[in-house]
Amino acid sequence: MPPARLTRVIRFSAAHRYHRPEWSAEENARVFGLCARDHGHGHNYRCAVTVSGPIGADTGMVMNLAELDALLATEVREPLDHRHLNHAVPEFAYGREIPTAEALAAYVWRRLAPRLPAGVRLAAVRIEEDDDLFAEYLGES
Amino acid sequence: MPPARLTRVIRFSAAHRYHRPEWSAEENARVFGLCARDHGHGHNYRCAVTVSGPIGADTGMVMNLAELDALLATEVREPLDHRHLNHAVPEFAYGREIPTAEALAAYVWRRLAPRLPAGVRLAAVRIEEDDDLFAEYLGES
Amino acid sequence: MPPARLTRVIRFSAAHRYHRPEWSAEENARVFGLCARDHGHGHNYRCAVTVSGPIGADTGMVMNLAELDALLATEVREPLDHRHLNHAVPEFAYGREIPTAEALAAYVWRRLAPRLPAGVRLAAVRIEEDDDLFAEYLGES
Amino acid sequence: MPPARLTRVIRFSAAHRYHRPEWSAEENARVFGLCARDHGHGHNYRCAVTVSGPIGADTGMVMNLAELDALLATEVREPLDHRHLNHAVPEFAYGREIPTAEALAAYVWRRLAPRLPAGVRLAAVRIEEDDDLFAEYLGES
Amino acid sequence: MPPARLTRVIRFSAAHRYHRPEWSAEENARVFGLCARDHGHGHNYRCAVTVSGPIGADTGMVMNLAELDALLATEVREPLDHRHLNHAVPEFAYGREIPTAEALAAYVWRRLAPRLPAGVRLAAVRIEEDDDLFAEYLGES
Amino acid sequence: MPPARLTRVIRFSAAHRYHRPEWSAEENARVFGLCARDHGHGHNYRCAVTVSGPIGADTGMVMNLAELDALLATEVREPLDHRHLNHAVPEFAYGREIPTAEALAAYVWRRLAPRLPAGVRLAAVRIEEDDDLFAEYLGES
Repeated sequence: MPPARLTRVIRFSAAHRYHRPEWSAEENARVFGLCARDHGHGHNYRCAVTVSGPIGADTGMVMNLAELDALLATEVREPLDHRHLNHAVPEFAYGREIPTAEALAAYVWRRLAPRLPAGVRLAAVRIEEDDDLFAEYLGES
Repeated sequence: MPPARLTRVIRFSAAHRYHRPEWSAEENARVFGLCARDHGHGHNYRCAVTVSGPIGADTGMVMNLAELDALLATEVREPLDHRHLNHAVPEFAYGREIPTAEALAAYVWRRLAPRLPAGVRLAAVRIEEDDDLFAEYLGES
Repeated sequence: MPPARLTRVIRFSAAHRYHRPEWSAEENARVFGLCARDHGHGHNYRCAVTVSGPIGADTGMVMNLAELDALLATEVREPLDHRHLNHAVPEFAYGREIPTAEALAAYVWRRLAPRLPAGVRLAAVRIEEDDDLFAEYLGES
Repeated sequence: MPPARLTRVIRFSAAHRYHRPEWSAEENARVFGLCARDHGHGHNYRCAVTVSGPIGADTGMVMNLAELDALLATEVREPLDHRHLNHAVPEFAYGREIPTAEALAAYVWRRLAPRLPAGVRLAAVRIEEDDDLFAEYLGES
Repeated sequence: MPPARLTRVIRFSAAHRYHRPEWSAEENARVFGLCARDHGHGHNYRCAVTVSGPIGADTGMVMNLAELDALLATEVREPLDHRHLNHAVPEFAYGREIPTAEALAAYVWRRLAPRLPAGVRLAAVRIEEDDDLFAEYLGES
Repeated sequence: MPPARLTRVIRFSAAHRYHRPEWSAEENARVFGLCARDHGHGHNYRCAVTVSGPIGADTGMVMNLAELDALLATEVREPLDHRHLNHAVPEFAYGREIPTAEALAAYVWRRLAPRLPAGVRLAAVRIEEDDDLFAEYLGES
């Protein structure tokens, strides 16, 4: 049977701030706008993880959902939920990456891609910051 | 003019149960979790059907919407809405396919693909079981 | 400080069927339409529980959210989620109550009202069967 | 003509943390759970403001919408959007009020109630922290 | 059994324009902003009709849903869906009422209130113009 | 770093009518159904614009969001919001293109594609007419 795609959404609430310490306050405000404000602000994020593969003849599934949920709990919810991303995630510490939706999608990709079971491929990671702003990361091909 | 894509969503309410009669109750529960419970449970499904093709110069449409709606009524709503999928759909009878979102997307694809008008291609069928679980079927290429 | 209201939503997936065994099949279909079909169908329900009371000076809360969530898990999710309501809930067995949104709201009210902490009042229970059909129960005054 | 009600929703993104400095870390975690974590987390808030009054014969409106929007911009968006509430709002500084949805609804009420035009009454302020948690404040009667 | 409330949502797409012919173009623009522009604009409206009454012992319903749907089809969808309200609805002709959400809610109330079955009360009509603007009409008490 | 995708949604309210002046009223009604009615009707449109490119090392962004928002304001909101498309947009005047979701997506594509900064590619334009009807335009390849 040909590949199908399964998407699971996991939600998390986090704070973040866009700030480059090597830039002046004016430069930060010019590039990042309100996102540069002190102490940060926050979002209810939705993270949609898409895997692809054949549909299992016995299970009707691309991947066992309980197994996928367990992976998302340890690799997405645990490090990101109810966190201030700049403080809690080393990759997003001040001076390293800016915690945009794009960067978060790539971060989740790097954590999930090597942990999927054989025969299942990570097809996309989508981070929705709110109803009107999304980023997708599709891997390094 | 180059191809564009048009997506129409149709909703249906259905019950389903994940159960393999050749497996023990324990095995069913281990693989399918709460979905294995007796008599089933249910969802408000959203089925998003995407067709592609050129935009008609006279109509501005990839496919006439009334025609597409009529097809979705007979091929999706009629067999699936207000049904218990394991009892009402032969493909999902106990012992045959498990009525997952993936399997439902493939089922809808098989019904719609041969019935589209000339020049219109079925590009994707997406089944949303709830806000956080989707499956897509993209055909056998 | 005057009363405020706090609403918590809990979701569950269930199957149900509208059927009065003392009526003919024709009478059932005439009154209940597609909801009378054999074996039932299902929904993703949202249950919104509203409590009211003063805002705690120390906590800023009408009621501790973890405590409310624990109550909703045992009184709403446990008996209703991933269930066929006519089979799993004695009140909704064939010959007793029809498992409409109205009846479900009253069912949840009867379970929650006696279990709230002192000083917190149950103000409303709302059951949403889908995006376009809701019922509220406001208690017996 | 009799009173009607008009509700306008304004959105803002903010970070917050639940923390009482006079309590131990253990007590904070016991009462506030994940919301007590260092540096805070965040949400996409929706604030729904309901005003009531007669429908203007000339305008068909309870209150001029541009006027209401201007009020919400200065009294809700300006102090709360892209802010860390504990740091940016004096009422929610550590040691004062906990920035729950209930407390935010009362905060918005206190700012809006005295600024409405004659003949328009503030009927409710609702703060939605996410899709599943809301608080309403209905004033001191 | 005490009263409960049942809410049914019906959707319609319509165009409207805010324009008082006895005012100058400047005055129209000052009061109505972009809504005064020539030829109008439009919305996907949601109309939520709430009825209240006892829950029927046999049916579990405040009001038979098929009966309510039939009423909403003739009294709401038929006059309002796929219409330009200023042209198609006499009450909203230029020089009469402005077709705001408030005025539409009152219009629907006047059509539905006298047509409900005995024992069922119209409790509220809510018109949602978009996700962020609603009006409710609660009748003349 | 490999390409990622960023999607920004902009909303607008507009009226439209499907009508070919060279066809009879009967032919218009047969092809376009209710959309052919006099004076038009309307929608709350969502326009989702997807750009792709590498994630900027300094900014974490595929494209500066303020810059993208400014472009969407002048190229999408200004010509389309609070407009009657057949009257306000020359391409959709009667006798020219029918203002379907497909045609609107191509219209937005043609305006945006030549105006993106170097290194950023327009990947898709999606127009959502309501929750259940979308069109995507993916460019001429």
